[in-house]
Amino acid sequence: MDIDLIRELATPNDTKIVLAVIDGLGGLPHPSRGRSELEAADTPRLDRLAAESACGLTIPVGLGITPGSGPGHLALFGYDPLKYTVGRGVLESLGIDFDLQPKDVAARGNFCTLDADGKIVDRRAGRIPTEESAALCEQLAKIELPGADLFVEPVRDHRFVLVLRAKGRKKLSAEVRETDPQKEGVAPLTAEPIERGAKSTATLINTFVREAQTLLSDRETANAITLRGFAQQPDLPNMPEVFNFRAAAVAMYPMYRGLAKLAGMTVLEAGESYLDEIESLRSHWDDFDFFFIHYKPADAAGEDGDFGAKVAALEAFDKFVPALRDLGADVLMIAGDHSTPTTMAAHSWHPVPFALSAANIRPDAAHNLDEHSCLRGSLGTFPATEVMPLAMAYAGRLAKYGA
Amino acid sequence: MDIDLIRELATPNDTKIVLAVIDGLGGLPHPSRGRSELEAADTPRLDRLAAESACGLTIPVGLGITPGSGPGHLALFGYDPLKYTVGRGVLESLGIDFDLQPKDVAARGNFCTLDADGKIVDRRAGRIPTEESAALCEQLAKIELPGADLFVEPVRDHRFVLVLRAKGRKKLSAEVRETDPQKEGVAPLTAEPIERGAKSTATLINTFVREAQTLLSDRETANAITLRGFAQQPDLPNMPEVFNFRAAAVAMYPMYRGLAKLAGMTVLEAGESYLDEIESLRSHWDDFDFFFIHYKPADAAGEDGDFGAKVAALEAFDKFVPALRDLGADVLMIAGDHSTPTTMAAHSWHPVPFALSAANIRPDAAHNLDEHSCLRGSLGTFPATEVMPLAMAYAGRLAKYGA
Repeated sequence: MDIDLIRELATPNDTKIVLAVIDGLGGLPHPSRGRSELEAADTPRLDRLAAESACGLTIPVGLGITPGSGPGHLALFGYDPLKYTVGRGVLESLGIDFDLQPKDVAARGNFCTLDADGKIVDRRAGRIPTEESAALCEQLAKIELPGADLFVEPVRDHRFVLVLRAKGRKKLSAEVRETDPQKEGVAPLTAEPIERGAKSTATLINTFVREAQTLLSDRETANAITLRGFAQQPDLPNMPEVFNFRAAAVAMYPMYRGLAKLAGMTVLEAGESYLDEIESLRSHWDDFDFFFIHYKPADAAGEDGDFGAKVAALEAFDKFVPALRDLGADVLMIAGDHSTPTTMAAHSWHPVPFALSAANIRPDAAHNLDEHSCLRGSLGTFPATEVMPLAMAYAGRLAKYGA
Repeated sequence: MDIDLIRELATPNDTKIVLAVIDGLGGLPHPSRGRSELEAADTPRLDRLAAESACGLTIPVGLGITPGSGPGHLALFGYDPLKYTVGRGVLESLGIDFDLQPKDVAARGNFCTLDADGKIVDRRAGRIPTEESAALCEQLAKIELPGADLFVEPVRDHRFVLVLRAKGRKKLSAEVRETDPQKEGVAPLTAEPIERGAKSTATLINTFVREAQTLLSDRETANAITLRGFAQQPDLPNMPEVFNFRAAAVAMYPMYRGLAKLAGMTVLEAGESYLDEIESLRSHWDDFDFFFIHYKPADAAGEDGDFGAKVAALEAFDKFVPALRDLGADVLMIAGDHSTPTTMAAHSWHPVPFALSAANIRPDAAHNLDEHSCLRGSLGTFPATEVMPLAMAYAGRLAKYGA
């Protein structure tokens, strides 16, 4: 997608666009039964939708490139995921719904265990329970640093987020090397500035680490910390401004809400089920033009390598299709941020089934929403960054280019 | 392929990748019988491999662009062939196994025939026999130039290679215009520098041409020379460094060995048959991770416009497939550097059938290795530069991109 071109051509209209993302949608054949999760799942409503849609397969980042959740979603929102990157620290902050500010520096932290010589003997401090970790975070949050506020928020087990927020005129930089040596038997590293402007931030970080270690020094395990993935919010073009529309997002998991917020969407309440999510869209239907709605269970089952659970998650989604269609969007898309084949129990590089239902589509030979069928779709195998321009076109929201 | 991205994500593994290139693989339908060379050939082993593979068609350079051997191979190795070019002089040197050094300037030479007025009457000197040409090259090799060694090596018929190698601190430049006017009835041109730094090289070349003409002046034919395609080795990123693996190549024709060497591969002995080539891979199996193996006869038959010979060459390859598979690579690819349809008796721009056999592939409707069938493959029609990222992904050698 050429952002400047889209910005130039984007035209308001009274049409509605729904981008329904099924996280980890694509899969691979079951080793003995030969059908993929989508093929094995009984999804008559999704298949009917696909039959009435223009179908294809999206490439999230590039052929052979396995995306994380950040790049997978940014691509669907129209951003080149190689140009716009979301650092680990920012993603972790989004994942716990932390209200990250534009100039904050965030890092992923680990509690770890040092021996008497100060060498790491356990990088994860025996995966201490989240409650214990939370109590330690409360202690560390009391550390005071000159010129910066700090936040220490538990994530899960031994993991936490550190956020530094500059006070007054001070400027922080994320160009700091991680303190996690990524192996045991050595001491944690000192935070080193990667660029000149990061020197004072590195000093702050080293002060924090030293004081943290003092606070934790009486402990047998979890007596130190490591930090990595120092990052600031990426400067993403604002979706409402680029596409000239009002954009809303609904997602039960904080990370996806956070990614939507980074893109400039308004985050709506998600409730406690996918039906709640759909109802949330319905109750804000008049207030927005574009809606991103996120469904997580397919990816979670894929990551667990549980074929049956992924099939069940897809079948569960299928039952929501009538409610999604009832919203009456002019453009309804079913997309995935990446494939998560259960046979691999991980994200993968395989292109992701995609269906776009709207007026003016070219009917094609893709009659089911699955990997095989979408290969026969009229959209072909195409970059995920082109999803938004297609949606805009089908919504009558893109002016003609050139005379 | 984004080289920096691949370099960042490439991760060692104990997997093996084999890239088997069938030169000039793609074709066109026979004008009366209607089937392409690949469709007409009886290749049950290739077809079985294709049925078990992810298939597609590769675009070597761009739609409509007919590649030479250089760009065709560079693309398969992962290099953008529009960014990395191999000059004619370098390609000719590689083609005769000349041990070109990084700073050498190489040119393609022709013996030609001048009339009494010094005008070219035959640009190819009646295509004098290679032996006669070789004797003349020996004479020309005795010319001495200030500051540079020179090599004059026969190629075939009237063609030879001139290589200039700087001595001491002297620097040579390839930015020199060719002396071949590309038509008859005019005198050979003077070598002109294209940039300021090429002035002394142009002077050397003009001295060489003048002395050559003096040495040849008693002859009726082949009494002069023309030179074109001045070139130095391109500065290609090193495949082992980019992909973080050990790479080997085996090819019976010197040009392909040379291209592999330019890319940083270790060249293995090829023996005298394709079976020897395969045995060479087998005997070095533990020493490398990536193997490029080259098969020439299909292209040669295509260039000759001999449909039956190309069919026979493909059928001959088919019999080697079991030996190739027996190597036990984790990723085995059958690819072509370009199409060479016998009806055109030349390289062409048509996309090239491609099959990748590995774990975690999506089975597709491409059940034969041919132009029609591969259109139904799960890889689609895609740039040849993406072959290596795909191979790396399927070999479990690429880390996830982004969190």
